[in-house]
Amino acid sequence: MDFEVIVLGSGAAVPSLTRNTSAQYVFCHNRHILIDCGEGTQLQLRKFKIKFQQIQTILISHLHGDHIFGLPGLLSTMQLLGRTKGITVYGPKGIRKFIYACLEEVGKGIYFSLNIVELEPNTSGVIFEDKCIEIVHFPLKHGVPAHGYVIKEKPHKRRLLRDKFDETGVSVSYIQKLIQGEDIVDMSGKKVRSDDVTIPGKKQKKYAYCCDTAYSTDIISFVENADVIYHDATFLSTEEDRAAETFHSTAKQAASIAYKAKIGRLLLGHFSARYTSTKEHELEAKEIFEKVTAVEDGDKFVI
Amino acid sequence: MDFEVIVLGSGAAVPSLTRNTSAQYVFCHNRHILIDCGEGTQLQLRKFKIKFQQIQTILISHLHGDHIFGLPGLLSTMQLLGRTKGITVYGPKGIRKFIYACLEEVGKGIYFSLNIVELEPNTSGVIFEDKCIEIVHFPLKHGVPAHGYVIKEKPHKRRLLRDKFDETGVSVSYIQKLIQGEDIVDMSGKKVRSDDVTIPGKKQKKYAYCCDTAYSTDIISFVENADVIYHDATFLSTEEDRAAETFHSTAKQAASIAYKAKIGRLLLGHFSARYTSTKEHELEAKEIFEKVTAVEDGDKFVI
Repeated sequence: MDFEVIVLGSGAAVPSLTRNTSAQYVFCHNRHILIDCGEGTQLQLRKFKIKFQQIQTILISHLHGDHIFGLPGLLSTMQLLGRTKGITVYGPKGIRKFIYACLEEVGKGIYFSLNIVELEPNTSGVIFEDKCIEIVHFPLKHGVPAHGYVIKEKPHKRRLLRDKFDETGVSVSYIQKLIQGEDIVDMSGKKVRSDDVTIPGKKQKKYAYCCDTAYSTDIISFVENADVIYHDATFLSTEEDRAAETFHSTAKQAASIAYKAKIGRLLLGHFSARYTSTKEHELEAKEIFEKVTAVEDGDKFVI
Repeated sequence: MDFEVIVLGSGAAVPSLTRNTSAQYVFCHNRHILIDCGEGTQLQLRKFKIKFQQIQTILISHLHGDHIFGLPGLLSTMQLLGRTKGITVYGPKGIRKFIYACLEEVGKGIYFSLNIVELEPNTSGVIFEDKCIEIVHFPLKHGVPAHGYVIKEKPHKRRLLRDKFDETGVSVSYIQKLIQGEDIVDMSGKKVRSDDVTIPGKKQKKYAYCCDTAYSTDIISFVENADVIYHDATFLSTEEDRAAETFHSTAKQAASIAYKAKIGRLLLGHFSARYTSTKEHELEAKEIFEKVTAVEDGDKFVI
């Protein structure tokens, strides 16, 4: 598969023997991306058989321990196992100081190229782009500056209808322009419209990660039409006040965002340790939005 | 049992799915002590059913990540779960900066009393003492300042031989002095020697933790006659040069220390991830010292 997500940690605040703290691995067109890195993430990567030296990009949502305390250990292990390839870490202001404080104090610098990009609070924009994918960050509503991330495919080229094209009799040298959507006129003056000999390429896939966040419709413009969204669902609606106080969401609020943003599938996560089962989270969300999964560590989703 | 050790992590450098990085829990006469705190230690404490809010004292050997990267997460979790009781952390100079850099950067101070005691390099002495136990630190031979720790019982009082005492006819008010080893003369001038009516209390138990360290006979004066020693055995003798270069020990060198220091039982640990089995470590050590165990995570030893 070209685009998939593996949940490495779906628990809030403190790790347990059944749920680690936040982390996800995203594979998208040969890019290997880690989102968040709670304590123990390096072991979750091993457990779910993900080659962590392949990771090129780390996206950190915010500077709470349950999202970053695995980062010093992961970077150290990468180095101890002989990494030479560089890595880029994106995260809120302060992430550089945190990483260097941990690594310098322990007497070991990092010898591979460690590129740290600090994001300004309350900003959004493209942070990474290549010919296949694009990564966008946007602000979440949390107690400290926090960033959501969208990973999406670049637009796919239109596809040639070979029979229709052959009927036109123009040179094959015009194919590139036609699949880029351009109409052409050949040397003999013959006109061919792109729409007549091509069809749109397959839909761009889009994944959105929104954790940790209180309920906020401000995120909709960034996540709309995503095939899959992972949204904070720390609490059930019975704890809606507690969710608001702590800048987290209920399962119902997550479903409301998924409905309004016309999402394909909603993944609920970041569950408070007070819940031994997340069946209720799913049921509550399904009242508003049908396609919902309360995730478990190790779950894999094809986007 | 009054004195026991549970191994929480027996692997070197990088955690694996079978061995976590360094940590041990020591229970000694109602004192709850953690030694070292590699990443994931809080989960190991859960796994082996140790109530970690009971821990009052944390002893850190040195500032390498595999011995401290679990500390910020453990302290955070203690706080998130409502800890109010204070805790004392002993470790090399720099441990305070490491802890505060991690905890301040993540936007959460610690609200319970966190007493951090920094130990000078190449020094030794008593760092903790109460009526039941004593903790001593001493220098190890490692690439950065590193401390070994001895936890030992205070001398047990002499035990009264009740029949012999009753035969003397002196007042019971003299018992305390007699079991403290003092000879007495009562009001009537009657002399009673402590040795005649008491016998020595049971032997003081002693546990020594020596990790990470190169082979060094300098530690013998601190660890001698310990009932149990845990000693760095990162390598087999075939890697003796590598051990010296990296300031670690071979299983044979650990056995040599145990033999020279007249130890009761030798525990081998801090195994390099290159070894899938530690049978060879045990065999190699047994050529020099019979009572040896290559530990596994979760092993419990009564001292």
